[in-house]
Amino acid sequence: MDKTVGVLGGGQLGRMLVEAANLLEIKVNFLDGGEYSPAKQVINHGNHIDGSFKDADAVRKLAEQSDVVTIEIEHVNTDILEQISQSGTDVQPHWRTIRTIQDKYAQKELLQSHGVATAQSVPLDSASIPDLQKASEALGLPLMLKSRREAYDGKGNFPVKTKDDFKSALDTLGSNKDLYAEKWANFRMELAVMVVKTKDQVLSFPTVETIHENSVCKLTYTPARGVSETVNEQAQELARKAVACFEGKGVFGVEMFLLEDDTLLVNEIAPRPHNSGHYTIEACPVSQYEAHLRAILDLPLFAEDLQLREPAIMLNILGGDSEDSHKAFAQEALKQRRTKIHLYGKGKARKGRKMGHITVTAPTMSEAETIIQPMIEYADKDKPKRANAVPSKPQEQPLVAVVMGSDSDLPVVQPGLAILKKFEIPYTVRITSAHRTPAWMAEHASSAAANGIKCIIAAAGGAAHLPGMVAAYTHLPVIGIPVKPTIGDGMDSLLSIVNMPKGVPVAAMSVNNSTNAALYAARILGVGDAAIAKKYVQYMQDSRGEVREKDRKLAELGADAYAEKYLAKK
Amino acid sequence: MDKTVGVLGGGQLGRMLVEAANLLEIKVNFLDGGEYSPAKQVINHGNHIDGSFKDADAVRKLAEQSDVVTIEIEHVNTDILEQISQSGTDVQPHWRTIRTIQDKYAQKELLQSHGVATAQSVPLDSASIPDLQKASEALGLPLMLKSRREAYDGKGNFPVKTKDDFKSALDTLGSNKDLYAEKWANFRMELAVMVVKTKDQVLSFPTVETIHENSVCKLTYTPARGVSETVNEQAQELARKAVACFEGKGVFGVEMFLLEDDTLLVNEIAPRPHNSGHYTIEACPVSQYEAHLRAILDLPLFAEDLQLREPAIMLNILGGDSEDSHKAFAQEALKQRRTKIHLYGKGKARKGRKMGHITVTAPTMSEAETIIQPMIEYADKDKPKRANAVPSKPQEQPLVAVVMGSDSDLPVVQPGLAILKKFEIPYTVRITSAHRTPAWMAEHASSAAANGIKCIIAAAGGAAHLPGMVAAYTHLPVIGIPVKPTIGDGMDSLLSIVNMPKGVPVAAMSVNNSTNAALYAARILGVGDAAIAKKYVQYMQDSRGEVREKDRKLAELGADAYAEKYLAKK
Repeated sequence: MDKTVGVLGGGQLGRMLVEAANLLEIKVNFLDGGEYSPAKQVINHGNHIDGSFKDADAVRKLAEQSDVVTIEIEHVNTDILEQISQSGTDVQPHWRTIRTIQDKYAQKELLQSHGVATAQSVPLDSASIPDLQKASEALGLPLMLKSRREAYDGKGNFPVKTKDDFKSALDTLGSNKDLYAEKWANFRMELAVMVVKTKDQVLSFPTVETIHENSVCKLTYTPARGVSETVNEQAQELARKAVACFEGKGVFGVEMFLLEDDTLLVNEIAPRPHNSGHYTIEACPVSQYEAHLRAILDLPLFAEDLQLREPAIMLNILGGDSEDSHKAFAQEALKQRRTKIHLYGKGKARKGRKMGHITVTAPTMSEAETIIQPMIEYADKDKPKRANAVPSKPQEQPLVAVVMGSDSDLPVVQPGLAILKKFEIPYTVRITSAHRTPAWMAEHASSAAANGIKCIIAAAGGAAHLPGMVAAYTHLPVIGIPVKPTIGDGMDSLLSIVNMPKGVPVAAMSVNNSTNAALYAARILGVGDAAIAKKYVQYMQDSRGEVREKDRKLAELGADAYAEKYLAKK
Repeated sequence: MDKTVGVLGGGQLGRMLVEAANLLEIKVNFLDGGEYSPAKQVINHGNHIDGSFKDADAVRKLAEQSDVVTIEIEHVNTDILEQISQSGTDVQPHWRTIRTIQDKYAQKELLQSHGVATAQSVPLDSASIPDLQKASEALGLPLMLKSRREAYDGKGNFPVKTKDDFKSALDTLGSNKDLYAEKWANFRMELAVMVVKTKDQVLSFPTVETIHENSVCKLTYTPARGVSETVNEQAQELARKAVACFEGKGVFGVEMFLLEDDTLLVNEIAPRPHNSGHYTIEACPVSQYEAHLRAILDLPLFAEDLQLREPAIMLNILGGDSEDSHKAFAQEALKQRRTKIHLYGKGKARKGRKMGHITVTAPTMSEAETIIQPMIEYADKDKPKRANAVPSKPQEQPLVAVVMGSDSDLPVVQPGLAILKKFEIPYTVRITSAHRTPAWMAEHASSAAANGIKCIIAAAGGAAHLPGMVAAYTHLPVIGIPVKPTIGDGMDSLLSIVNMPKGVPVAAMSVNNSTNAALYAARILGVGDAAIAKKYVQYMQDSRGEVREKDRKLAELGADAYAEKYLAKK
């Protein structure tokens, strides 16, 4: 903690880094052009260096004042980093790591040599039509033509759909640049994982769903929506494996494609804090910035502190048409609850420039989506409405899984579904027969928790094994609805459900009472979700009111008139 | 957001205030003595003022540069604030508020004139033994003798137990100071509430339990432990009522005594962010610092954003014997998970000086207590062990309430209690008969949620009304155990519990199966508590292992030998 950290670059990433450093009294010196650049605004000690982070003398001066030198942008001069490193300055991550990552094709080659899945790539010998033709024969069309260096936020990428695009692609990316072609990835989602490499561990933050617009990150959702626990774990593993290929310490942003068939490819890696990790400031016990400092300074770091506390959505504040458009955006965001605003102190806005971001955290993703919706609409206010714009009705994470042994049970289950709708509790309904589809029943029950389900309602009649078998495959609370069979009064169903052996509990409801099953699910969810608990209290009040009203009418009309008027109708 | 805020004082409160201001690009100028004081270290713009916040010219200079002037310490010169206010500077909170609060006796008089409960107080005409004698006759002994001004962190207080203490009390507090005597408060706890006064609302943060040592705040626990929902609400209301007595906007810290009979008295008020509100940085969507800025700048503020996200414990880092004792403390704290460290940039430590603080947040108070325990022990390492030191075994918040209709049900319930213990789930056990103590049953059930209970297990036999009646009084999930009566097989108990009317669900277990009731409670709690869910998964694995082991033995021995060897024992 007594070491001094020197940083090349002083933009928003440096600013957020120093916000974490200030809490620990870690001294940070910045080298960048502005006297009051975003990062320098928030740490005042008179020792910053004004100058270009590409200027060798300035970097050497920074190195002299610092115990560890790190970067907040990868487009630095790695020859100078190599020199200062050889003169004894601790450079993190390693200068070779930064040099490799600067060249996107070299980055991919290194990853592939370590068995990390990436899109197939072919370097172009020259920026010429014949060479591009050769690449297109190897990879097929469409393909993505990319600059190997100095490319970010979509700059340096050109989608080549047909041969007719060859010329404009080469014209746009420039003939003096090293180019490479990448096989087109038909991805259904983009994911990102922030990885921390310490002196002896490789740890990862949660998997993030990233939404890009015009090749710039617009939104991130954590946890990633509609991604199974298996894919989530594969993404974490792939990201850690990718970062383990590189030398040195610090945080790395790993961007990935999730293809239609659920396979994952690494797209690219940033050797520094990353836009897709901003959410960690509010949503995790330790942020990506604090994790970077802990990693490069060999301070303790726990995997548990990188876990999510609450679902989080991050929305970038991009510059608009006016120079204070970001301030107007922040004024809008101030009107929303559970919204943390981060402005970067960049002065006047320029169109499309990252001027800040907001992070919404809430007990459920669905609540966070509701809160952020007006701010997404504000961000999109000047945009032509497009069919493929971010959907205004957000996708909801199901919390209750309803299962039944047969479709004949559905009419019994329906009143319960109506209650779940009334409480706005998202649910799934499936037929998973314990006797006719035992394997599917087992798979559905055992994967429920990993898919974000909090509680299972199971309806079955007669031998009624479903609730108990589901309970055998999950640690989630299972609520059983005994369904009255065609023969008998349903006592068989009830006893099959309620008389579970010691060790595997099922909550039995009365025969055919799916209403109570759904209400019981609401009580369970209400334990951890204040909004649902509040609705439940309201439901109890309403129900009390209804009975009191009936009582009033009964007293007013007398028993006979009441029975005729109200009960006859039934 | 475009307004400039001027702050008198630049210590740790100013530092944390500016951490919130930087996120919103709110410009803050500090007036205080050090060029690199704690607050000035973290906002760099070249416009701070070096000087005393008691110097009239310096304050006027600050006012000229600022749209709103506020304070981070109340011991300022209110005559100058009155002048700049009359010259048109917006001073928040109002200078009259600061002036009244500076004089602790005037503060208490104002509160009492508005009907706010405080300890009875008597001013001393002079600092003489006869005047102290007069006060002791009015208030009784013991009493607390206090300086009216410039008193904080216990400085300026002297406990007068008998007449023999009169002379030393007067000698210690000094004859030139205004003194007053306060009736001795036999409190069982000290509570604090941060209140925000905006232009049109008075809002409050949660109720905090504060633990002082040598009259200095040492620890805060939020929510306050062992405080009923009623007392909690009364504390919130009293704090808001107290702050509503004062003019102006901003946050106020309200310190209270909770007496043995559960009545509350306001002890004193700070017209600024307060040590007992540090926890809000991590634990609430909007911190006390951001709330102060939003209040004084008329920006929106929502009651919901002042609510607790997770239980939090704050521990002050006080200076020790060496000048870098706070850094050694921080090194210890870095070894703990879920621990946020705040060092204040005060340079060398002095004994007892507030050098920083740490905040632990966790999904449950009991987990937070476990995490912070080694840090409390570290803080206490040089202290002689005392009988009344903070107990090393923290008090646990019960999560499950177990009730039964009669003590004869207890033997049936016991195996369930053993399961709760195995899962380390804290619980209460009570007898609340639906028929013999209907009012007590109703009170217990209806207050359970407010007391932090998440789930209720109710056991009853025969007519077995208890689970259903409990469910009628709470929105928490209720698990019913049908107890086998002396006559019959228990089918009466089972049907009474399971056949609940639509609208009021109870989860029925099989007859006498308290084991499953407790396991079901663990499943419910596991929905929101990953540690419990993890234990449950382990339990399922162990149970699978046990059955596989029995199967192995059965295959090895054959049926007859197995039955003789293992079943005969039963």
